[in-house]
Amino acid sequence: MTLYVGVEDLSRLVAAIGVEPFITGIAERIEADFRRWEEFDKAPRYASHSPDGVIELMPAADRARFSFKYVNGHPKNTRHGLQTVAAFGVLSDVDTGYPVLLSEMTLLTALRTAATSALVARYLAPPASRVMALIGLGAQSEFQALGFRALLGIDRLQIWDIDPAATDKFRANMAGLGFDVVAARSAPDAVLGADIVTTVTADKARATILSDNMIGSGTHINAVGGDCPGKTELAPAILSRGTVFVEYPEQTRIEGEIQQMPADFPVTEIWRVITGDAPGRSSADEITIFDSVGFGIEDFSALSYLYDLLGAGDYTRRLDLIAEPADPRDLFGLVRAPVVARHAERQHA
Amino acid sequence: MTLYVGVEDLSRLVAAIGVEPFITGIAERIEADFRRWEEFDKAPRYASHSPDGVIELMPAADRARFSFKYVNGHPKNTRHGLQTVAAFGVLSDVDTGYPVLLSEMTLLTALRTAATSALVARYLAPPASRVMALIGLGAQSEFQALGFRALLGIDRLQIWDIDPAATDKFRANMAGLGFDVVAARSAPDAVLGADIVTTVTADKARATILSDNMIGSGTHINAVGGDCPGKTELAPAILSRGTVFVEYPEQTRIEGEIQQMPADFPVTEIWRVITGDAPGRSSADEITIFDSVGFGIEDFSALSYLYDLLGAGDYTRRLDLIAEPADPRDLFGLVRAPVVARHAERQHA
Repeated sequence: MTLYVGVEDLSRLVAAIGVEPFITGIAERIEADFRRWEEFDKAPRYASHSPDGVIELMPAADRARFSFKYVNGHPKNTRHGLQTVAAFGVLSDVDTGYPVLLSEMTLLTALRTAATSALVARYLAPPASRVMALIGLGAQSEFQALGFRALLGIDRLQIWDIDPAATDKFRANMAGLGFDVVAARSAPDAVLGADIVTTVTADKARATILSDNMIGSGTHINAVGGDCPGKTELAPAILSRGTVFVEYPEQTRIEGEIQQMPADFPVTEIWRVITGDAPGRSSADEITIFDSVGFGIEDFSALSYLYDLLGAGDYTRRLDLIAEPADPRDLFGLVRAPVVARHAERQHA
Repeated sequence: MTLYVGVEDLSRLVAAIGVEPFITGIAERIEADFRRWEEFDKAPRYASHSPDGVIELMPAADRARFSFKYVNGHPKNTRHGLQTVAAFGVLSDVDTGYPVLLSEMTLLTALRTAATSALVARYLAPPASRVMALIGLGAQSEFQALGFRALLGIDRLQIWDIDPAATDKFRANMAGLGFDVVAARSAPDAVLGADIVTTVTADKARATILSDNMIGSGTHINAVGGDCPGKTELAPAILSRGTVFVEYPEQTRIEGEIQQMPADFPVTEIWRVITGDAPGRSSADEITIFDSVGFGIEDFSALSYLYDLLGAGDYTRRLDLIAEPADPRDLFGLVRAPVVARHAERQHA
């Protein structure tokens, strides 16, 4: 039987552990997995594009476990009361090929994206950063804020969204959580004086959320929203001025901010910074940019973290996702037996 | 909520409809989908190989629906009482990106593979075929036999497996189903006088199940077992002598029997035969070979067929696989709410 963690179960589990400890736990797992980057079977995600969105499959594997995530991106979904990004995923045993865990991953993706963003910022952001601009106050925004506090101690947020209702939602959710939240009057206003700028907008379009003149020297930019072909947030001039760090160049060149740049635009793989193979921030004036698109190993880390948590507590159900006939070669017995059973019932009736 | 069809549900549904009508229903769907081949978003499957097996993701999509199947291939699994091939799959709505159906697909794959094999044989096998050699009596074998009877009227089976226990299992399962089953003493003995030869063995190795001198003129070969790199069943000389038909050349050249041949070895795409664009069997003497590896569109067809059946009857459950917050941008509310609920309980206690 395959363990199943649905939305209701995962919500209870995360609430019980706490959002910040949960993000920290995933970040530690991602850091450990990025350190052993070369042990993983990697590939750019498979993307099936349609007029209104994209459906993606994101696999990753080490010698013991295989994982994949199914995730969509449909910006118009919110008009119909649906999520822009919805996801679920599976963790499997490489030795048998059997799935051991099926989990919702809409919530888990928000948690692992925040974990990745904050982990990378710990390597790249100016030391003693306190103020973060947060542009785009959709489904991911609260998780980003909590991730940056958990891993970097960020407690002042300068927030901006083109939709005032999103700002109201964010403020209500963050009330009483100990943040100093300042609603800006514009994106440039939000960025002013920030050590870290996080962009996490949802439009599937070439938008310029950040223009070059908005970004002062020494800033760390955590660019989360530009994550598929035709969807970017930063003016190309910022990318030329700063140093760009990516997860997996083969995927980021297709999907990330650097899709706007030439194919040989220089980037640094973030796992090399984590292992010490490559420098991170090299001066107080440098603009560092994490061109984040999300990579399968982060989902692998999140699913592994979740799976290892499930031993204790009542947060799972069991699904008969995989046939388990007594004789594995007798798959046919599964469809033959019910007929016999019904015949038997009829005889007894 | 996502509909879920587990092993127990699908077994009951297939038994209620009957294996042969179910295979026929899938075959009709595959035939219709192959006729509109060019409407599909197609890709070779993603394969993650490990020392003991492979895990694959097989996507396909038209303008309305997206599907993928997760499937493994681990020949040593049977030693531990597990399936060599286990699978599950998902059907989604392209407009929203949301999954609408999650189903077991171990059983469904056996049914759709038999449906594909028999459908293709209807276009390629000698007219009025009556006798099929069936080599490899594992989990797929009974479904192949029933598929060929349902679509072609095959009722004499000459069977062979290196393991006598597999032969006993097959005979017991087929008893009383109206077939004339003859257990051969060897593979060459099984092939003798057969109109159609089906190979469906499981070893992940370059085996020669069929050698050139075993195959008489006019035979149709349904080669099902050779379906991943390093796993073949036919001697290359047979491929040179016959006409080879494939599902999707980009995938079959990597995984099929023709992995043994040069990259430009001529093949005919079977969908072109179905639409009438390409000839099928051109003479009574011709050896036709269906180098089958399984393709995502067949799973798409099978999942679509299953989904459309589910309206009536009690064969599904509902899973909270995708988060559905009242405000789609308020994902955070899912983890905030349980905390509030617990506080409220405490106050009332």
